[in-house]
Amino acid sequence: MKRISESTVGRLSLYLRILKEYAGGATISSEELAGAAGTSAAQVRKDLSLFGTFGKRGLGYSVPELTGELRGILGLGQEWRVALVGAGRIGQALFGYQDFRTQGFYIQAVFDSDASKVGERWNGTVVRADEELERVLATEAIDIVIVAVPAPAAQSVVDRVVAAGVRAILNFAPTRIEVPAGVALKNVNMAVELEGLSYALANERANDRRGRAG
Amino acid sequence: MKRISESTVGRLSLYLRILKEYAGGATISSEELAGAAGTSAAQVRKDLSLFGTFGKRGLGYSVPELTGELRGILGLGQEWRVALVGAGRIGQALFGYQDFRTQGFYIQAVFDSDASKVGERWNGTVVRADEELERVLATEAIDIVIVAVPAPAAQSVVDRVVAAGVRAILNFAPTRIEVPAGVALKNVNMAVELEGLSYALANERANDRRGRAG
Repeated sequence: MKRISESTVGRLSLYLRILKEYAGGATISSEELAGAAGTSAAQVRKDLSLFGTFGKRGLGYSVPELTGELRGILGLGQEWRVALVGAGRIGQALFGYQDFRTQGFYIQAVFDSDASKVGERWNGTVVRADEELERVLATEAIDIVIVAVPAPAAQSVVDRVVAAGVRAILNFAPTRIEVPAGVALKNVNMAVELEGLSYALANERANDRRGRAG
Repeated sequence: MKRISESTVGRLSLYLRILKEYAGGATISSEELAGAAGTSAAQVRKDLSLFGTFGKRGLGYSVPELTGELRGILGLGQEWRVALVGAGRIGQALFGYQDFRTQGFYIQAVFDSDASKVGERWNGTVVRADEELERVLATEAIDIVIVAVPAPAAQSVVDRVVAAGVRAILNFAPTRIEVPAGVALKNVNMAVELEGLSYALANERANDRRGRAG
């Protein structure tokens, strides 16, 4: 398979989500898909052509067939074994996020370095001590690690996880993380997004005050 | 104030977070800040010079002074009035995310279109009916709206919010949202990040099978 860009993978995710919610019938045109995705029909056709020939000229794409193909491309036909490091507020919210499971992401193990949290039962999953991390990553054959620890602890957790052979990390710690080539890293940072909004608002107000007397 | 890029604003957020956790004393050098942020000392000095003269040559930056300046630049000295649209699982997790409050983001109102949720009390905040949205945005002088509704409903919620005069939106719905110029929009999409990881893993396995016999 050709190497494709992160933005293409992001659009494929979006197409899949649109198909899931599509109420228009058994087929969908590239124009409809493009409209819902905020892109062009030419872009949709180009993205999908990377993976072979889909759809029939004039008839559009079969919704179930395209759904199946996209799920396969995105690795969603498989089940992924996930470990969560950090049993704080964000970790708890993520553990309770049921859509993970419906998409094939199964949290197998939860870790925390806080002795008062170790031993807690979360729906049958026991919070384990940080020292067990390497052993459990191996015995549970973990594919993906979600990092939800405070920022100063995040890089050292990631280093241990990478050394243990994990190749995919989703980081929620509000800090910059480095991983070696060959390890996939994604970051989710709500605080940074909110601060981007407050920056925009604060500046707009400042400009309003300066620019528009009265 | 000069117009600065989103990536600069993102780095300023990161510097602020690093300062908050810095245990090295009353001053910090641009080298230390750069090391923790994964950037260069020259970049740190360039970013901070946009806002005036900080720090003393050879002495570094005063941690409390720089913290205060960054908070001001990012609009964090102010309190922002936030409304949450969507009282589902993600909405609940966000409502419970206490760090919002410590950073000056106060959720004043929660809305849902599901009649069975309307009237629920969340820590003293009552979930309101969707029809009240426009009226409450105005009476409560809402600055920022967090959108946590299903994807098909998201654009119409955003259109109503924008029409009501809100200028900053944080979108959690897994779909592409359009806003007019002058409205700040940020997106957080965990599903897309996870699918990016599963794509990377699925492809790596496929390549392993093809490339490395035995």
